[in-house]
Amino acid sequence: MIKIYTVEEAQRSILRRQPLNAMTYPPAVLAGTERLFGPCVTPAQAVAKILASVQAEGDAALRRWSKLLDRVELEDFRIPSEKLEEAYRSLTDELKTAMQTAAQRIRLFHELQPLPNWETTSLGGRLGQRVTPVERAGVYVPGGTAPLPSSLLMSVIPAQVAGVKQIIVCTPPNPHVSILAAAYLCGIEQVFQIGGAQAVAALTFGTESVPKVDKIVGAGNLFVTLAKQQVYGLVGLDGLAGPTETVVIADSTANPAWVAADLLAQAEHDILASAILFTPDREVAEAVQVEVARQMETLSRAEIIAQSLEHRSGIVLTPDLPTAARLSNEYAPEHLCLAVQDPQAVAKLIHNAGGLFIGEHSFEVLGDYIAGPSHVMPTSGTARFASPINVLDFVKITSLVALDPASSRALSRLAATIARTENLTAHAAAADFRLGELDV
Amino acid sequence: MIKIYTVEEAQRSILRRQPLNAMTYPPAVLAGTERLFGPCVTPAQAVAKILASVQAEGDAALRRWSKLLDRVELEDFRIPSEKLEEAYRSLTDELKTAMQTAAQRIRLFHELQPLPNWETTSLGGRLGQRVTPVERAGVYVPGGTAPLPSSLLMSVIPAQVAGVKQIIVCTPPNPHVSILAAAYLCGIEQVFQIGGAQAVAALTFGTESVPKVDKIVGAGNLFVTLAKQQVYGLVGLDGLAGPTETVVIADSTANPAWVAADLLAQAEHDILASAILFTPDREVAEAVQVEVARQMETLSRAEIIAQSLEHRSGIVLTPDLPTAARLSNEYAPEHLCLAVQDPQAVAKLIHNAGGLFIGEHSFEVLGDYIAGPSHVMPTSGTARFASPINVLDFVKITSLVALDPASSRALSRLAATIARTENLTAHAAAADFRLGELDV
Repeated sequence: MIKIYTVEEAQRSILRRQPLNAMTYPPAVLAGTERLFGPCVTPAQAVAKILASVQAEGDAALRRWSKLLDRVELEDFRIPSEKLEEAYRSLTDELKTAMQTAAQRIRLFHELQPLPNWETTSLGGRLGQRVTPVERAGVYVPGGTAPLPSSLLMSVIPAQVAGVKQIIVCTPPNPHVSILAAAYLCGIEQVFQIGGAQAVAALTFGTESVPKVDKIVGAGNLFVTLAKQQVYGLVGLDGLAGPTETVVIADSTANPAWVAADLLAQAEHDILASAILFTPDREVAEAVQVEVARQMETLSRAEIIAQSLEHRSGIVLTPDLPTAARLSNEYAPEHLCLAVQDPQAVAKLIHNAGGLFIGEHSFEVLGDYIAGPSHVMPTSGTARFASPINVLDFVKITSLVALDPASSRALSRLAATIARTENLTAHAAAADFRLGELDV
Repeated sequence: MIKIYTVEEAQRSILRRQPLNAMTYPPAVLAGTERLFGPCVTPAQAVAKILASVQAEGDAALRRWSKLLDRVELEDFRIPSEKLEEAYRSLTDELKTAMQTAAQRIRLFHELQPLPNWETTSLGGRLGQRVTPVERAGVYVPGGTAPLPSSLLMSVIPAQVAGVKQIIVCTPPNPHVSILAAAYLCGIEQVFQIGGAQAVAALTFGTESVPKVDKIVGAGNLFVTLAKQQVYGLVGLDGLAGPTETVVIADSTANPAWVAADLLAQAEHDILASAILFTPDREVAEAVQVEVARQMETLSRAEIIAQSLEHRSGIVLTPDLPTAARLSNEYAPEHLCLAVQDPQAVAKLIHNAGGLFIGEHSFEVLGDYIAGPSHVMPTSGTARFASPINVLDFVKITSLVALDPASSRALSRLAATIARTENLTAHAAAADFRLGELDV
C-alpha cells in the first residue's frame, strides 16, 4: 500500500531528510555488534577496531575478521583469473549479450565526458591545469540478497576510461558468478573476496596481498559506510552511500502502470529505499495507488517492497509542476524521473539530482543497467553537492604555472606587498630576490 | 640549519608520510583540551561535543563556545557590511593594487577552466551531463599569527566563477583588517566571526544566524580539521588539510640563493611545514645549505623556520633528475617547483602534485598570492587523488538520460535480462511493461 500525502504531510514525514549521523541502527545490528565485539561496543567502534587491526597486522587480521564476520576460512583472498573466465563462460548467451551491451554503452558514455585539461598564454607565460589519472583504484562491490554485477561495470568502466592503471575489486566472500563474470568482461584481474570494513581497511592501508589504493569507490553495508567515513582524508572516496531513492514527477499524461512499476522497482532494493511520486493530478495519484497494489502481488520481493512503501515512500499531491520541481530540488534525490508531457521544460527547473530521466521511455531501470551513465549516484540529499561516479572521480588536477620572466618580475613586487601584510617576511624575501633587491 | 640526506636516509625520515590518523597531538593541545573539556577528553571527542551542541542549540551554543574557546562575548556574529568597506578603504594604495591584481588574475584563471557539460545523440536519444553550481558555499579563513587574506581570495573567487549564489565566510573572532578588506574586494557580504569546530558546525547544520551550506572549503587548525572529518557525508568538503609542503627539484643551473629563499618561505608557515630539495648536484646542495643559513638570520620568523628545517625539511641527493621526479611522485607534494635547465622535460615526468611551478621564475610565492590558480592545494600526500580548489569544487554533475522510444525498447529487453540475474523482479517488470509484455 502506497499512501497519498499533502505537501505538508510529506514534509513532516517522507521528505524529511535524516542526516547520515542521526541514523539509528536496527536492534539486530546493535545486538550482532555486541555479540561479536563485546558489550557496549557501537558499530563505529567495532569498525575502528577492524581498521586498526588491518593497518597493523595486514592479511592475518583480514583472515581473522573473515572468519569471525563472514564465517569463511581463506588462505588466499584473490580469486584466480581462471575462475573469472569460467564464470563468464558459464553465462547464458542472452546474459552475455546484455552485459556486453551494457559495458559498451557505459564505456562510450564516459569516453564522451570532456576532461578539464587546458592551458592559456593570456596570463603571462603558460598557465593551466593538467589532469592525470590516479594510479590505483579500489572498487567495492556489495554482496547480499541481490548480487549486483551492474555495480561492478558502473564503477570499473569509468575508472578504466580515466586511465587508471590498476583496478582492484573487493567483494564479500563467495561472490555470485555474475560478479566474477562482470570482472572478466571488463578485463579486471585483481578480484579479492573480502567484504565489509576489512575490505575498506585493506584497500586504504594495503596488506601483503591487497595493494594500497589511491581512491575507493562503491557502496556497501553499514560497516562499509562507517569504514569509509573513518578513513576519509587517508584515501580518496566517492562519498558515503545511504539508502537508494527515486522521485517521479508525473502529470495527467503519465501512464499510471508504468509509474507504479518504476516506484516498485525502486522499493524492492531495500526496506529503507524511498520511492516518491509528485503529481498535481489526483486521478493519476489514485490510479498509481491502485496499480502499485495490483502489481505488488506478482513480485518476489513483496515483503521488502511493503516496508519501503509503508515508511519511506508515498505519493505527494502538489499544486502544480513547478512546485513539484521545487520540492524535488529541496529533497535532492538520487534519481529523478519526469513522466510529464513536456519533460524538457521540467528538466530546466531541476538543479539538484544525481540522474535525471527525461520522459517515460527513459525509466530508471535503464539507468540502473544499460543507458550509459554510472548508476552509482549521490543519495541522502548529497546531490546538493555531489555527482554520480564519473571519469573525474578517477583523476586529479595539477595546476601549472610557467610564467615568463617579465610577468614574474611584475607580479613579484605585488606578491611581496601582500606577503608583508601577512607577516610572512621570508615570502617577501623570495620575491625580492627575483627583483634583484636582495644580494645573491 | 638544513641537513643533506641520502635517498635512503630521507625515505626513513623526512619523506616518510604520517597518515593523518597517526598524527600525535602536541602536549599543549592535549592539556588545553582536558582543561576545557574535562579529564581524558580527546580533541576528537571535544569536537564531537561542539558539533552536537551547535546542531541542537544553534546560536546559543556558538556564543558559549566563542566565550570558552576564543574568549569573546558576541551577541551578533555577523560583521556589518560597513566594517568590510571601512577595512578596504583603510588599506594602502599599494596593497589595494596588489590585492586587486591578485583577485583579477585568480578570476581570469578560473574563468578559463572548462566545465564538463556535454550532450550526445550517438547513444539513441539525448544523453549527457549537466553541471550546476551548489547553492550555498561556506569558506573558512583561518586566523592565527599570519592572517591570510589571500586564502579568502583563493577560495571565494573559484566559487563565484562557478556561479554559487550565496557564499558565507567564517573566520575566528576579531579578524585582521586585511581579511575583511579581501571580503569587500570580492563583494562578499556574509562574514561571520566564528572560528574552529563551531564554525564548521554552524555551516554544516545552520543556526538562527548562520545559513546551512552545501559545501565547506578552507583549511584551519586541528579542531577545524577534526570537525571536517566528523561532518564528512553531511556536507560537501574540499578535503582535510595537513601541514603545508614544498618540494624543489634543482640541477646545476639553479640559483642557490633563490632555491634557499623558496625553501625558507615554505618553512616559515608552520613548525610542521616541510621544505624539501631534491638535487643530483652536490655543489648546489652545499651552496643552498650555506644560503639557507645566511638568509635565515634576517628573517622575522626564524624560530618557526628553525623547527621546520630541523624536523621536517632537508636536501636530498638523488642519483639523477628522473629519480628526483620518481621520489616526488611517491611523496605527492602540495607544491613542486622545478629549478632546472629544462623544466618542461621534468614536468612531463610528474603525475602527483597539487601545483607545478615550472622554472625558477615561477616560484611558489607567486602561486601563494597572485599567479592565478588557487593556493589551496592537497597536502599530506593527498595529491595522489585530490586537486587544488577549482571551479569543479563548487559544482556537481547531473547525468541526463533522454532516450528515444526505439532505443528504449531495445535496451529494455537487455535490462530485464540483467535484472533477473540480480533477482530484481520488479526491475524486470518495469522493463517488461515498456515492451508491452505485461498488461496495463
